[in-house]
Amino acid sequence: MAKSIRKKASKKELILQRASAMFREKGFPATSMRDLAESVGIEAASLYNHIQSKSEILQEIIFRTANDCNVHMDRIDLPSLNNIQKTESLIRFHVQMMLNRFDDYYVMVNEWIHLTEPYLTNFTTQRRNYVQKMEAILADGISKKEMKPVLPYVAMLTILSSVRGLEFWHRSGKKVLAQTMEDNMVNHLIGGLKKN
Amino acid sequence: MAKSIRKKASKKELILQRASAMFREKGFPATSMRDLAESVGIEAASLYNHIQSKSEILQEIIFRTANDCNVHMDRIDLPSLNNIQKTESLIRFHVQMMLNRFDDYYVMVNEWIHLTEPYLTNFTTQRRNYVQKMEAILADGISKKEMKPVLPYVAMLTILSSVRGLEFWHRSGKKVLAQTMEDNMVNHLIGGLKKN
Repeated sequence: MAKSIRKKASKKELILQRASAMFREKGFPATSMRDLAESVGIEAASLYNHIQSKSEILQEIIFRTANDCNVHMDRIDLPSLNNIQKTESLIRFHVQMMLNRFDDYYVMVNEWIHLTEPYLTNFTTQRRNYVQKMEAILADGISKKEMKPVLPYVAMLTILSSVRGLEFWHRSGKKVLAQTMEDNMVNHLIGGLKKN
Repeated sequence: MAKSIRKKASKKELILQRASAMFREKGFPATSMRDLAESVGIEAASLYNHIQSKSEILQEIIFRTANDCNVHMDRIDLPSLNNIQKTESLIRFHVQMMLNRFDDYYVMVNEWIHLTEPYLTNFTTQRRNYVQKMEAILADGISKKEMKPVLPYVAMLTILSSVRGLEFWHRSGKKVLAQTMEDNMVNHLIGGLKKN
């Protein structure tokens, strides 16, 4: 019994992984349950033993990825870290998500628009809160003179957009290592915030 | 006669502008010639007095926007400018394109995939050359110790991705002025390249 539950859990995980890859490649609307079943290697009807609907799959992918982001944001909320360190940790976290969890992260960032209510509003609220926390870290860093007086909104946008741009690294076939990408991006983006 | 040519030219310009806005909003594949004619305020059949096909419209939008990028790149190829100045000029140019020529720039960056041959290969070659010139400026800045030793490829990606991210500023309804966005982004991205 325990073994069968584990087996079911791993099958569901496989479904989520394959769905995430397909949603990224083709987009949520163009991905059919039939294609997904084929990719997983089961009958389309069997998919419904594991999940209720295509919408539910999208929700699970996006909300568990959002959880990981929220957990990391909470983890850096420490008095022992200054705002430069917090910002660096955020950049490294997002770069790693984009490099190591590309499908899930891409789907969260690009396909959330296909969520249905109440998940859609719930997600956009979470995202707004997340971005506000990031801007608050930048604003605190500026007020404490750890950082140059940039607009937190613009710096947040620059950082998150740069991370999104790693999509092109994925597609380019460039042989630059993930760690090198991360270190260079941190060097550039944190360097630009620090006071000279 | 001269007046009628001018009138025809301005009608064509209007068609290109409306098409650019529609391609950005709905994507090239989902935009129909019928919708475009309606937006311009003429009969669908009359469109063909001005342009041959939807593909031709896409080509004109993308290639004239690419021309503007290439002209700017040539314009900064001056011995009187150091590489920090050249890079700053590139960032300002791209930010201004994204802010003031949003439709055209967005269509070039996102919809080029729908070009047909020979335009598709021609465009990707131009783009590769353009990016290589940008990386060469960064590499020269590093070798002359004007800039920190970052990977030119990663810095190029960070800069162009940050500019693309201004799409979210357009959509956010934020009241941050274009000039303020530009100055902040330059401050952050150039600051991160300079040697301390």
